[in-house]
Amino acid sequence: MKRIVVFPGSFDPITLGHVSIVKRAIPLFDKIIISIGINSEKKNMFALEKRILWIEQIFKSEPKIVVESYSGLTIDFCKKKEANYILRGLRTSADFEFERGIGQVNKKLAEDIETIFLLAEPQYTPISSSIIRDVIRNGGDASSMIPKEVVL
Amino acid sequence: MKRIVVFPGSFDPITLGHVSIVKRAIPLFDKIIISIGINSEKKNMFALEKRILWIEQIFKSEPKIVVESYSGLTIDFCKKKEANYILRGLRTSADFEFERGIGQVNKKLAEDIETIFLLAEPQYTPISSSIIRDVIRNGGDASSMIPKEVVL
Amino acid sequence: MKRIVVFPGSFDPITLGHVSIVKRAIPLFDKIIISIGINSEKKNMFALEKRILWIEQIFKSEPKIVVESYSGLTIDFCKKKEANYILRGLRTSADFEFERGIGQVNKKLAEDIETIFLLAEPQYTPISSSIIRDVIRNGGDASSMIPKEVVL
Amino acid sequence: MKRIVVFPGSFDPITLGHVSIVKRAIPLFDKIIISIGINSEKKNMFALEKRILWIEQIFKSEPKIVVESYSGLTIDFCKKKEANYILRGLRTSADFEFERGIGQVNKKLAEDIETIFLLAEPQYTPISSSIIRDVIRNGGDASSMIPKEVVL
Amino acid sequence: MKRIVVFPGSFDPITLGHVSIVKRAIPLFDKIIISIGINSEKKNMFALEKRILWIEQIFKSEPKIVVESYSGLTIDFCKKKEANYILRGLRTSADFEFERGIGQVNKKLAEDIETIFLLAEPQYTPISSSIIRDVIRNGGDASSMIPKEVVL
Amino acid sequence: MKRIVVFPGSFDPITLGHVSIVKRAIPLFDKIIISIGINSEKKNMFALEKRILWIEQIFKSEPKIVVESYSGLTIDFCKKKEANYILRGLRTSADFEFERGIGQVNKKLAEDIETIFLLAEPQYTPISSSIIRDVIRNGGDASSMIPKEVVL
Repeated sequence: MKRIVVFPGSFDPITLGHVSIVKRAIPLFDKIIISIGINSEKKNMFALEKRILWIEQIFKSEPKIVVESYSGLTIDFCKKKEANYILRGLRTSADFEFERGIGQVNKKLAEDIETIFLLAEPQYTPISSSIIRDVIRNGGDASSMIPKEVVL
Repeated sequence: MKRIVVFPGSFDPITLGHVSIVKRAIPLFDKIIISIGINSEKKNMFALEKRILWIEQIFKSEPKIVVESYSGLTIDFCKKKEANYILRGLRTSADFEFERGIGQVNKKLAEDIETIFLLAEPQYTPISSSIIRDVIRNGGDASSMIPKEVVL
Repeated sequence: MKRIVVFPGSFDPITLGHVSIVKRAIPLFDKIIISIGINSEKKNMFALEKRILWIEQIFKSEPKIVVESYSGLTIDFCKKKEANYILRGLRTSADFEFERGIGQVNKKLAEDIETIFLLAEPQYTPISSSIIRDVIRNGGDASSMIPKEVVL
Repeated sequence: MKRIVVFPGSFDPITLGHVSIVKRAIPLFDKIIISIGINSEKKNMFALEKRILWIEQIFKSEPKIVVESYSGLTIDFCKKKEANYILRGLRTSADFEFERGIGQVNKKLAEDIETIFLLAEPQYTPISSSIIRDVIRNGGDASSMIPKEVVL
Repeated sequence: MKRIVVFPGSFDPITLGHVSIVKRAIPLFDKIIISIGINSEKKNMFALEKRILWIEQIFKSEPKIVVESYSGLTIDFCKKKEANYILRGLRTSADFEFERGIGQVNKKLAEDIETIFLLAEPQYTPISSSIIRDVIRNGGDASSMIPKEVVL
Repeated sequence: MKRIVVFPGSFDPITLGHVSIVKRAIPLFDKIIISIGINSEKKNMFALEKRILWIEQIFKSEPKIVVESYSGLTIDFCKKKEANYILRGLRTSADFEFERGIGQVNKKLAEDIETIFLLAEPQYTPISSSIIRDVIRNGGDASSMIPKEVVL
C-alpha cells in the first residue's frame, strides 16, 4: 500500500518552517499532498491562488509533492485522497497541546488515519505564518522567514 | 450549611466530558446548578432553549441537579444562588493555566467561594465543545462525543 | 455517607501552602486525614514524629482533622480509612501534568475514589517543601514560608 | 551609552502588575518609555488619551519614565527612540511560550535590541488587563487589581 | 531505501502504551527495532532478559519487529543498524518538552536521522513504566496497564 | 549605584548557550560575576578548577566579567558581592516553571535583588549541560555545543 500523507494548513503564507517539515518528510512517504484548508470564516491575507502558486514553485522539482485545496474536515479530505497519514510540525508545547486534541479526535473519527509529527528545527521554532503576517502588516521585512518564491 | 455548587459554561453543546464531571461531583454536593453563561458578545451555535432542554433531559432522573442561565459575573450568580463552590473540569495544562487565572481572581473578588477541580477522564480529554462545533460545521459525525439526548 | 478525604504528602516540612489548602477544604468534608506517606527509598530531612507533631499542633483546634502515616499505595490507604476522596493542591502546570497522571491512574485502579483539586493561593504558588529544605540546608531563613509551629 | 527601554503594551487599562514591573525596572535603566501600541484591528475599552493620562499620573514623580503611543512594529519604534531594550513581564508558561516567539523573531529582525524579562510578583500573577475588562464589563469591582489613578 | 526505525526505551516494563505506538507504526516502516537502552547508572526493576523476552512474546507474530539491546548513544546505535528513523510516543507537554531537546540535539549530531512522533491514545496517556513500577512496588495491581505477556 | 549581576550555575561544562547569554548581558551591567555553585550533594563531571579555567579563558578579553565559586544560597552570595541582580537564561516552558519558583522565593527572601531573564537564542534552545554530559559519557562528539576553550 502506498504511503500517502496530507500536510494540512492555511499556508498564509508558507514559511521556511513549513518547507523544512515537508522536505524532511519526503523519504518517509510516497506522496505528500500539501493541502490548503479553505475556511470561509477566516479572513486570509493572501489569495488562495497565490498561496497555491508559491508552493508549486517551491516544490516544482519534487515529483512526490502536489498542492491542493479543500474545505470540510481534514479526515474527509484524507479519505477522498486515499491518504492514511496526516503530517504536522511541532514547535512549542502550546502547539503540542492544540495538536494533541485535534489528533486524538481525528483518530476517534477515523481510526485508520494516523497523524505523524516532526519537530521544527530550532532556527524555525519562533516562526509562524501569523507572526509573519503581523510583520508584513506593520511594514517590516519578513524575508528571512519565508522562501524566496513567496513574492509579496 | 448546604453544599451548593455552580458548574458554569456555555455548553454549546454539552459534551460527554461535561456529563462525566457532573456525575462524579454528585456525591460531593447537595445541589449542582449547571449554569449556562449568556455572553452577548459570543455567537452560539445552538439556541439557549435547546441547550437547557438537552441538559434537563440528560439529568432528569437526578434530583440534585438543576439547569439555569445567567449573565454577568459567575461569582455574582453564585452569591444570588447561595452557592459557595464553583466546579470545573481540567483536561490539559492549557486548561489549567487559563483556569488558574480565573479561579485566583474569583477568589480575590469573593473570598468565600471556592473553585473545585476534577480531572477529565482520559477518554474525554481531547473532547471540547469547540472541537464538536467544528466537526458539525464541516459535516462530520460528532455522535461519539455528545450524549444521545443532544439531537442536532 | 460521610465525606472523608485523604490529603497525602511527605510534609517534609508542612508549608503555609499546605495549611491553606487544608483550611479551605474543611467546609467541604466531614473528615480530613492528613496522611504522611512513608517512602523508604526517599531520605527525609525531618523525622516522621516531628512532622506528625507539627501538623497536630497546627490543627489542634480543628476537630475534623486527623494526622496519620501510611506506607503502600495511597488508594489502598483510602480504602482502609473508608475515604472516598483524595485532596491535592495545584500550583503550576508542571504540578498539573504530574498530578493528572497520578490522578487518572488512581481512578483506573479505584473507580470510586475521586481526586479533588484546589488552587494554591497566589502568594503560596512559589512555595514547596523542596525549596524550603534547600533554603534551610544552605543556612537561609525559611520562616516566611512555614507555619510558626514548625520549629526547626 | 544610555540604557533606554521600551515597555510595550495596550495598557487597556494598566494593572497593578504592570506598575510593579515598571517600578522594579527603574534602577536598571536610564529611561523607560511606556509605549502604548495602537492596533487599529483591536477594539479597546478605554480611549488612548485616558490610558496615557492614567499612566502619566501614576508615574508623575518618576523622572526616568515617559509615556508614548506608537503604531507599527515595536522594534521600529525602538529604533526611532534609540532604545536598545524591550521590557516584558512573565506571569505564566502560556505567557512565556507567547513571548518567546515574539522575542526571538524580534531578535532576528533587529539583532541589537534585547528583550529583558522580569517575573510577575506572585500576588499579581493572575491579573491581566483582559480579566479586568471582563470584570468591569460584567459590573464587578476591579479596584483591587488596578492603581487608584485609574478612574473608570 | 528501506525504512528502518529504532524505538528506544528502557521498557521496564513495556506498557500497553508502548505496544499501541509500535502497532500503529508498523504500516509506516519496513522494520522496527525495539531497542532497550542499557544505562549502567540506572537501576532497573526487571532483568534485561525478562524485558527482551516479554517484548518478543508480544510481537512474535509480527515479522517486521525485532528486539535488541544497546549501550551508548541512540544515534550511534541507529547508524550501526542503518536505521534512519527514531520513533517516540508523546503523551503530555512535559514529554514534549523533554523529547524536543533530545530530538533537536540528535538532529544536530546526525542530520540524516529523523525522529518521528505518534500521539499516545487517550486511554494510555496517564500510563508510564515509572507509575507501573510504583504500583508494583507498593503491592498494587498493574495488570490493566501492561500486556498479558508481562508476567511479574 | 553600580549594576552588578550574578550569573549562577554549575557550568558542568559551560555551553554555547551560557556564553551567548553572558555576552548579550554585557551592555546592561557594569560587572558580571559568573558564579559556580558548589553543591556537595551533586556529583560533577568536571573538576571545579577546570570549569573555572575554561570560563576565564573564554572571557579573558572582557574586563567586566569575573568567575567565582560559592556555596550556600545564591542570594547570600549576591549580598556578599553587593550584586543586586541575578541573571538567568530561559529556553523552555519547563525552564520557566522552575525558574519562576526559585525567582519568586528569592524575591521573598531578598526584596532588593531582582532576577533578570534573557531568552536563549533559537539555535541554543535544545542545548543543556546535562545533555552534553550525556553525549560525552556515551562517547559522542559534543564539540558543536561547547566553546572551543572547553577541552575535554
